[in-house]
Amino acid sequence: MDYDIRDIALAAQGKRRIIWAQQHMPVLSQLSAEFASERSFAGKRIAAALHITTETAALLMALRAGGAEVALCASNPLSTRDDVCAALVEEGISVYAFYGEDLETYGRHIECALACDPHLVMDDGADLIVALHQKPSRGSTVAAIEETTTGVVRARALAEQKLLRFPVVAVNDAPTKHYFDNRYGTGQNTIDGILRATNTLLAGATLVAAGYGWCGRGVAARARGMGARVIVCEVNATRALEAVMDGFQVLPMLQAAEQGDIFVTVTGMADVIRNEHFQRMKDGAILANSGHFNVEIDIATLADIASERSQIREHLEEYRLPDGRKLYLLAQGRLVGQVAAEASPAAIMDLSFADQALCTRYLLQEYEHLTPDVHDVPAEIDERVAALKLRALGIELDSLNEQQQAYSRSWQSGTVA
Amino acid sequence: MDYDIRDIALAAQGKRRIIWAQQHMPVLSQLSAEFASERSFAGKRIAAALHITTETAALLMALRAGGAEVALCASNPLSTRDDVCAALVEEGISVYAFYGEDLETYGRHIECALACDPHLVMDDGADLIVALHQKPSRGSTVAAIEETTTGVVRARALAEQKLLRFPVVAVNDAPTKHYFDNRYGTGQNTIDGILRATNTLLAGATLVAAGYGWCGRGVAARARGMGARVIVCEVNATRALEAVMDGFQVLPMLQAAEQGDIFVTVTGMADVIRNEHFQRMKDGAILANSGHFNVEIDIATLADIASERSQIREHLEEYRLPDGRKLYLLAQGRLVGQVAAEASPAAIMDLSFADQALCTRYLLQEYEHLTPDVHDVPAEIDERVAALKLRALGIELDSLNEQQQAYSRSWQSGTVA
Amino acid sequence: MDYDIRDIALAAQGKRRIIWAQQHMPVLSQLSAEFASERSFAGKRIAAALHITTETAALLMALRAGGAEVALCASNPLSTRDDVCAALVEEGISVYAFYGEDLETYGRHIECALACDPHLVMDDGADLIVALHQKPSRGSTVAAIEETTTGVVRARALAEQKLLRFPVVAVNDAPTKHYFDNRYGTGQNTIDGILRATNTLLAGATLVAAGYGWCGRGVAARARGMGARVIVCEVNATRALEAVMDGFQVLPMLQAAEQGDIFVTVTGMADVIRNEHFQRMKDGAILANSGHFNVEIDIATLADIASERSQIREHLEEYRLPDGRKLYLLAQGRLVGQVAAEASPAAIMDLSFADQALCTRYLLQEYEHLTPDVHDVPAEIDERVAALKLRALGIELDSLNEQQQAYSRSWQSGTVA
Amino acid sequence: MDYDIRDIALAAQGKRRIIWAQQHMPVLSQLSAEFASERSFAGKRIAAALHITTETAALLMALRAGGAEVALCASNPLSTRDDVCAALVEEGISVYAFYGEDLETYGRHIECALACDPHLVMDDGADLIVALHQKPSRGSTVAAIEETTTGVVRARALAEQKLLRFPVVAVNDAPTKHYFDNRYGTGQNTIDGILRATNTLLAGATLVAAGYGWCGRGVAARARGMGARVIVCEVNATRALEAVMDGFQVLPMLQAAEQGDIFVTVTGMADVIRNEHFQRMKDGAILANSGHFNVEIDIATLADIASERSQIREHLEEYRLPDGRKLYLLAQGRLVGQVAAEASPAAIMDLSFADQALCTRYLLQEYEHLTPDVHDVPAEIDERVAALKLRALGIELDSLNEQQQAYSRSWQSGTVA
Repeated sequence: MDYDIRDIALAAQGKRRIIWAQQHMPVLSQLSAEFASERSFAGKRIAAALHITTETAALLMALRAGGAEVALCASNPLSTRDDVCAALVEEGISVYAFYGEDLETYGRHIECALACDPHLVMDDGADLIVALHQKPSRGSTVAAIEETTTGVVRARALAEQKLLRFPVVAVNDAPTKHYFDNRYGTGQNTIDGILRATNTLLAGATLVAAGYGWCGRGVAARARGMGARVIVCEVNATRALEAVMDGFQVLPMLQAAEQGDIFVTVTGMADVIRNEHFQRMKDGAILANSGHFNVEIDIATLADIASERSQIREHLEEYRLPDGRKLYLLAQGRLVGQVAAEASPAAIMDLSFADQALCTRYLLQEYEHLTPDVHDVPAEIDERVAALKLRALGIELDSLNEQQQAYSRSWQSGTVA
Repeated sequence: MDYDIRDIALAAQGKRRIIWAQQHMPVLSQLSAEFASERSFAGKRIAAALHITTETAALLMALRAGGAEVALCASNPLSTRDDVCAALVEEGISVYAFYGEDLETYGRHIECALACDPHLVMDDGADLIVALHQKPSRGSTVAAIEETTTGVVRARALAEQKLLRFPVVAVNDAPTKHYFDNRYGTGQNTIDGILRATNTLLAGATLVAAGYGWCGRGVAARARGMGARVIVCEVNATRALEAVMDGFQVLPMLQAAEQGDIFVTVTGMADVIRNEHFQRMKDGAILANSGHFNVEIDIATLADIASERSQIREHLEEYRLPDGRKLYLLAQGRLVGQVAAEASPAAIMDLSFADQALCTRYLLQEYEHLTPDVHDVPAEIDERVAALKLRALGIELDSLNEQQQAYSRSWQSGTVA
Repeated sequence: MDYDIRDIALAAQGKRRIIWAQQHMPVLSQLSAEFASERSFAGKRIAAALHITTETAALLMALRAGGAEVALCASNPLSTRDDVCAALVEEGISVYAFYGEDLETYGRHIECALACDPHLVMDDGADLIVALHQKPSRGSTVAAIEETTTGVVRARALAEQKLLRFPVVAVNDAPTKHYFDNRYGTGQNTIDGILRATNTLLAGATLVAAGYGWCGRGVAARARGMGARVIVCEVNATRALEAVMDGFQVLPMLQAAEQGDIFVTVTGMADVIRNEHFQRMKDGAILANSGHFNVEIDIATLADIASERSQIREHLEEYRLPDGRKLYLLAQGRLVGQVAAEASPAAIMDLSFADQALCTRYLLQEYEHLTPDVHDVPAEIDERVAALKLRALGIELDSLNEQQQAYSRSWQSGTVA
Repeated sequence: MDYDIRDIALAAQGKRRIIWAQQHMPVLSQLSAEFASERSFAGKRIAAALHITTETAALLMALRAGGAEVALCASNPLSTRDDVCAALVEEGISVYAFYGEDLETYGRHIECALACDPHLVMDDGADLIVALHQKPSRGSTVAAIEETTTGVVRARALAEQKLLRFPVVAVNDAPTKHYFDNRYGTGQNTIDGILRATNTLLAGATLVAAGYGWCGRGVAARARGMGARVIVCEVNATRALEAVMDGFQVLPMLQAAEQGDIFVTVTGMADVIRNEHFQRMKDGAILANSGHFNVEIDIATLADIASERSQIREHLEEYRLPDGRKLYLLAQGRLVGQVAAEASPAAIMDLSFADQALCTRYLLQEYEHLTPDVHDVPAEIDERVAALKLRALGIELDSLNEQQQAYSRSWQSGTVA
C-alpha cells in the first residue's frame, strides 16, 4: 500500500486520540457497525480530501469497515495531524499528507489520492472535484460529496457553466450539517484557536466578525458569550438586520477597522480585510480567518506593506508597519480553528460525518438516477442522523398523536371552531 | 359607509396611538407615500382579517392612501383595540370588530368584511380564505395574502386537496417576516404579555417552551434573557438538537410538566398541553399560549376537571383542581402577546406589513400569471424591504467590489491558488 | 380608624390581587404565622412610607398579624394602587394615599402617617426619617428601617452630620435585598415599565444605562437579554471596568446621548441627563428613570426648552423641541417600573420584606443597644431569609462534612501535603 | 547568582513571549517606569511563589526595575513555563522552578527562594507565608502579599490563632483583583484549559460548577456563553439563590453527579467531588479543578477505585472503574486553566499585578504602622489601578459636577423637594 506521511511511529498516539474522538461520535459508530455487517462499500474506491483530524479518521475507518478502499489527502496544508495520518496508514488507508507541507507537495498529494481512480470523491473545499475537472476524463468517478460552503459554491459554479460531470451532494446544505458544524462547531473552534494562538482576553475586547452566515453567527454568539463586544460586517441586508436585532452593532468594515481588537473573517469571499482596512487598524490588532481558504485577509499586501515580520508565538506572527503599528496574523490566515486549535469537536463532526457516510452509500447506489448537478442531502438521511443523535444523547421527543396528525392536515378548524 | 365598532368617540385617542406606531414604521411610511403618488390601488376592494392594533392601522392606511376600498374584521376576538377601530372608521375604512366580541359576532363580522366582494383578501390565520372556500363561488376574489404559520398550513392543506381557488402569497415564509416578526416580535410580546398578566418573576423561574420554531426560539431566547431556566419540548429531531446545543434542556412534555413554573405553547398544533400534563403540574403553574389559535392548551378539559374558576387579575384566571392545586390560564389561552400585551412592536411590524403592502400591489398586478397555489414572496420584495429598513436605521453594509464579484463566480481558485 | 384613600369599594379587587402576590411570598407567609403566634408587635405603632403595591400589603398584613398598629403613606405619588389601599383599610391599617396625589397632599399624608407617634418608621427613600428630623423632637420613635440606596445615602448624611436621633437599619445593604431586589427586581420591572409605556422594540435598540450599580447592572443585563445593544455610563472606575468586561460599551453621557434610542437613569444622583444631553439626542429618543427620585433627568429644563408637550399614551409624554426633534419622557421621570409597571415581583419582594419584617422585630427588641447610626442587617437575619427562601423553592444545598469544616480552619495544608 | 531551572537556552523564546504579554499590561508598564525612576525597591529583597507565566515575569521585571533583588519559586508544580524561567534568570532573577517538578523538589525550591532572607514575600496560595511560620524566626521578613482566596483563608487562620508574625495584604480581596482576575480571568482560562485538554463540545454539554463565588460565577457565565447547560452546587444560601436567579439549576452534588458531562470545582474546599459522586457519574464524565489546590477532587480515592489508568492526551487521564465506566481527570486535578492553558490573560493580570506592585511599595514603606493581621488593599491603590486601566483602554467616565457633589451630601432633598 502506498502512502506519504511524516512518521509511522506516531501511530499509537494517533490511535489513542482517535478512540477519544470516537467515544463522542455515537452515530458514526452505529453506522460503522451497520456498514461492516452489510459490507456496504465492498469493491469501491473512495478518495477524500479532508482536514486530517481524529474525527476524520473515525469517518474513514467507518468506510473502511464497510469494505471501501480509501485514499486520503489534506484539504488544508496546516490542519493535518501527523499522528492521525500514521494511525490511518496502520488501518490500511493510503494517506498522502503531512503537517506544514508546501503547496507543491499539497498539489502532488491531491494527484496521489486521485491515482486510485476513485468511484467517489469526498471533498472539503472542492479541490478534488476541481482537479478531476481539469483532467480530460472523469475516469471511474460517478459521484462526489462536498462538505463546505466554499466548496458548494465552486461546484455550483461548475454546474452553472454546464461543466459538472457527475452528481455532487452538498452535505454542507443539510440542516444536520450547517446548523451544527458551521454554527456550534466553527463558533467554538474559532474561539479556541484564537485563545491558543494568543491567550488574549476576550472579555471587554471588541471583536469584529466579517460575515453573519451560519459560521459567522456561531463566532459572534460565542465571542459575546466570552464577554467580547461584537461588531458585525455584512453585505446581505437580511443578515445584517438579523445581526442588529440579535443586539450586535453592524458597521461597514472601514469603520469597524478602527474599533476592533480582534478581527475574524468568515465569509467565503476574498479580500474582505485589505489594505484600506490595515491602514486604519489600532496598534496590536489581531487578524484571524475562519473561512475555508486563506484569501479572506489580503495577506500578500500585508506582507508587502510590512517593514518587519516576526514569529511571536506558534501561529502568531507580527507584521510591523512603517508607522510603527503592529498587526498580528494568526495561523497564516488559514482556518484558525483548524490550525491553531483542533477543528470542530467530535460530537459535532458525528453529525456531519454521519451525513457523509450515509450519502456515500446513497450515491454509490443511486448515482445513475441523479443528474450531473449539485443535489441536496435526502431528507430521510438528514432526519435519520438527527434522530440517531438524540437517541444517543438520551433525549426524548414528543410525538403527535392521531388527533394531532389529523389536525395538521385539516383546514376547516379556525377561530370559530 | 358601513361599520360595527364599540365607540366612535375613541377615535382621537386611537389616532394619537397610531401616530406613535407610524413613527417606528419608516418603511411602511415610505411605501405609503409611493402608493399615494401612483394611486396603486385605485378601484380595488380589499378585505382584511387582522389583529386590530395600531400597526395594522398603519398598514391599512397605506393601502387606503393608494386608493383602495378596505373592509376590516378581527383575526382574534381578544386582540382588537377599540380606539384603533374608531380611528380607522374616521379614515374611511369599514371596520367590523370590537374587543371581546363573542364567536357568533366574530363569525358574522367575517361575513360583513367579505360582503364588499373583495378583489384581494389579507389574512392572519386564514379565516377569510377558508370562509371564501365554504361559499359556492369565489366572487371577485383573485388573490390572497396570508401572514401566519398557522394560516399557511391551512392554505397548503386546501391546495393539497386541490380546493384552492386563487393564488395565496405566504408572507409568513418571507425571511423579512418570519425571521423577525416570529422571532423578535413574538419573543418580546410573549414575555410582555406574561408580565402584564401576572407580574411574575422570570429570574429563576422554569419556563417550558413547547415548540422550537422561529416563534419558539424567540420565546426561549427572551425568557433566558430575563433570567429564566428554559426547557424546550419538540416533535422535530433537528429542532430539538438545536435547542440542546443552544444550551436548553429538552424534555418530553410529560416530564417538563412536573418542572415548569410557566408554560408557553407556540407550535401551531392542538392539545399540546392536555389532561395528562395538567395532572402532573405544580401548584401555581401558569399556562400561556403564543400560537395563533386557542387550541394549543386543551382548555375545555381544564374547565371540565376544575372544581372552581375565578378571575384573579385581568387576563389571569385561576382553575382550582379537586386535589387543591391551582393552575393559572392567561388570556383565555389566546395569543398572550396580542391579548395581554400589545402584539409585536411597530418596528417589527414595519417589515411584515411592508411585505404585505408590496405583495398586495404585486398580486393585484400579477395574479393572472400565478397558479392557485401557495406562493413565496418574490425575492425582490423581500430584499427591498430589508434594504429600506437598514437605510431607515442608518445602517451601512459592505458591498462586493468587482474582483470579489468575479471571485464568487469562479471555481478555479482553491488551496493551490 | 382614620384614613384617606380613593375608594373603599375597590377593596375586593385589591384583596384578590394581594392574595396572588402572597402566593409568591412563602417566606413572608411563614414569618406572618410566626408573628401571629408570638404576638411579636403587640402594643407597637409603626408608620410606613412605601410603594403601595400588593407586595407591600403582604408585609403590612404580616406586621398587623403580629399585633402592630400600622399607618401607611406613599413613597412615590405615582406608584400607589388604589385597590390595595382599600383592601388594607379593611385590614385595619390607616392608609393615607391615592394614585396621582399632588405633592402637597403627598406631604400632608406623611404628616398623617406620623401622627400616630410611631415607635418605628419604615422608609423607602427616607421621607419619614427626614420629616421626623425636621421636627423639634423625635417623639416615641426609637428606630427606623430604610429600604433603598437613595434613602441610605440620606440617612448616612444625617449620621455624618451627627444629626441622626435613632438607629437606622439599612435593609438595602443586606445581600438578600440588594443582590436581588435591586438587580433582578429592578432589572425586570424597568424593562416591564418601558414596554408597557411604549410597546417599543428592544431588539436592536441602543439602550443607554446611566449607572452600573446593582440596579444598573440588572437593567443592563435584562436589556441585553431582550436583544438591545447596551451602552453604560459611569462615574466610578471599577464599575466602569466591570461593565467593559461584561461586554458593554462604556461612554460618557455626552457621547452616549447621540447614540441612544432609550435612556435609563439608575444612579441615585441628580441631573444625570440634562440640557447638554437633550441637545444631542436623536429624534424619538425615550427617557426613563429607575432611580428612587425623579431628579435624575432634569425634567424642569426639558419642559423649559420644549416648544410643545403632549400625552401620547399613558405614561408617555412627548416633548417637542424647537428644532423639531421629539423626546419622550416616561412616567413623568419617576420610577418607571413602579409607575408604568407594577414594581418588583412578589417573589423578589418576599426577600426584601422578610428582611424588613425580621428587622422590625429585631429593632423593637434591641434598639437600646444600638447607637444612633446606620446599621447593617444582622447576618443571622440575612442568612435565615436566604435559607427559608431556598427551602420554599425546594432547592437543596450541599453542606460541609466534618473533615471539610476542619479543612476550612487549617492553614498547614498546602501544595506539599 | 543562584538558580535552578530547566534550560537557560530557552531564554530567547521566553523573552519574546513576555514582550507579547507586556503589550497587554499597560498599567504595569507605567508603574515599572515609575519604580525605575524613583528606585522604589533599592536594597530590598523579595521572595515570590507564583505561577511562573509571562505575566508573572512582567511583574517581577517591574520590581527589578525598581531595584529589588528577587527570588522566585513556583506556586504550582505544573504551571511553570520553562522558557519564562530562563528569560527571568537572564534578567537577574534567581528562579527555582521547572515544569513538572516533584513535590520534594517543589518544597526544596521554596526553601531556596526563602534563603535570601526576604524583606517581603509575595504569595499565591500562602506556601511561603506558611513555610516562614514553620521556622523558629521570621528573619528579616516584615510583610507579605497574598493573591488568592485560598491563601487569604490560610493567612486568616494563622491570624485567628494569633500566630501571624507580620502584616499580610490580601490582594485577592481588592475589587480590581477578585472582580476581574477571579471572574473574567478564571472564567476564560478554565474554559480554555478544558478545551485544550479535551477538544470536547461545550454546546449542549451539561457542566456542573461546584462553587458560585467570583471564580465560580465566571466559570458558569462563560460555560453558558459557550452553549453549555450549567448546574451549580453551593453550600451558601445567598450564593445559591443568586445562581437560581441567574437562570442556573442548583442541585446538591449527589444529584448533579448523575447529570454532568463536565465537572469543575472552584470552591477552595477539599473533597468536593468524592467517592459517592464518582459512583453516580455517567460514563465519560470529565473532571476538572479551578481551585487553587489539587484537593477539591478526591484524586487519591479515584486512583484507588480505578481498575486501570491511562494517559489519553496531554493533561487528560482516563480512570477506568471496575463497572466499566470511564472518568477523565484533567491536569491531574490541578488548576486546569494554569496547567492545560496559560493562566489568566495578560490584560487581566495587569490589574492584579499592578495591585501587587503598588502594595509591595506600600508595605515596604508602611509595615511598621500595620498590625500582624490580614489587611485590605488601601482604597487609593485600588482606585488608582482601575483609573490607570481605563485610561490605557481609552475609556472616559462621567464625573460629578459641583451641584451633583452637593446633592450627594444632602439629606433634605426628597420626594417633596
